[in-house]
Amino acid sequence: MGVTPRQFQELQQRVRAPKRAAGPILDAPTAGLLAPARVILGIDPSLRGTGYGVIRGGRAAVAESAAFGVVNCPAGWDRSRCLLRIAEALGDIMREHRPVVCVIESLFYAQNYQTALIMGEARGACLVAAAQAGLAIYEMAPRRVKQAIVGYGAAQKIAVAKMVQRLLNLAEPPPADAADALALALAYAQEQGRYSLSPLKRI
Amino acid sequence: MGVTPRQFQELQQRVRAPKRAAGPILDAPTAGLLAPARVILGIDPSLRGTGYGVIRGGRAAVAESAAFGVVNCPAGWDRSRCLLRIAEALGDIMREHRPVVCVIESLFYAQNYQTALIMGEARGACLVAAAQAGLAIYEMAPRRVKQAIVGYGAAQKIAVAKMVQRLLNLAEPPPADAADALALALAYAQEQGRYSLSPLKRI
Repeated sequence: MGVTPRQFQELQQRVRAPKRAAGPILDAPTAGLLAPARVILGIDPSLRGTGYGVIRGGRAAVAESAAFGVVNCPAGWDRSRCLLRIAEALGDIMREHRPVVCVIESLFYAQNYQTALIMGEARGACLVAAAQAGLAIYEMAPRRVKQAIVGYGAAQKIAVAKMVQRLLNLAEPPPADAADALALALAYAQEQGRYSLSPLKRI
Repeated sequence: MGVTPRQFQELQQRVRAPKRAAGPILDAPTAGLLAPARVILGIDPSLRGTGYGVIRGGRAAVAESAAFGVVNCPAGWDRSRCLLRIAEALGDIMREHRPVVCVIESLFYAQNYQTALIMGEARGACLVAAAQAGLAIYEMAPRRVKQAIVGYGAAQKIAVAKMVQRLLNLAEPPPADAADALALALAYAQEQGRYSLSPLKRI
């Protein structure tokens, strides 16, 4: 194949140019990037008290909270009733606020199989609701959320709540489960658009 | 309080009657009884292959299968997509066959927390679908199902499938996951109407 004069010129320029300094090897968005989203839903699943938080705005620094709260299920309710309530409540929230991305807390520790199973059931109800609404769903470990929000992976719950309060200009710290959910959404907002060596897992 | 002649006569009869032989202490239906149902849905939940089986008819001896099969989710699918598919497929089946009771397999063993969590997620999707359809939901341990159907709690999968085939007059044994689901429904049919010292757990 022949080389056009233009291509020849470009090649000469590249050979003559000074050596490039070290830089990111990936300048363009690639598969490692998170889906960009302006409305993000964070979920901290639990059978009796699922926390949720919706934020608007791009980066964490300019985000504002649209809604947050806890889906409470009384101790006397059957498990299936709680799960339906979780799925329905989250469905209502998604219909109202139209998030594009859902970030859910991944399990990091369980006391025993029964706990892991029940936690899994609550996650299943959340995931069905989010998948039904067509959201892109990611999971994030609590340590990573704390690291992103408080700067310390083993931060206490109250520290997370206070940081969430400050980042979102709230009058007071949100309830613990809701704060965790808002922190998930904020951590996602902070990470999106950056290339990460350990990208979040889409589930 | 006075005693009427009729009551007196009854009392005399009871005193004169021969001693009763040992018998069940509870003759009448009580709280320990399962909800009676003619159409029963059995579910054997799993992320990639949830088995389901619907049977009609009262006792196991006269039951017939209305539908059975496996909800398959390819290995490449995201977990949330699988969960939505499970919930939707079961929702369709419940709308078509209108079961009143759902019997779901309880977890008896998990290799690790991750397995228990994923199994829990699949169960959560099933439970949301069943609760949405308003079914009475019970869980049953695999050992108890095998004991009821094959007469041996540690029976092999193929033995369960063959017994299900015989009980339901099927041309050939159903696929393993569907057979387990049908066995759950049959075991429920067998137990309903009887008083049990270890009643099934409603969840």
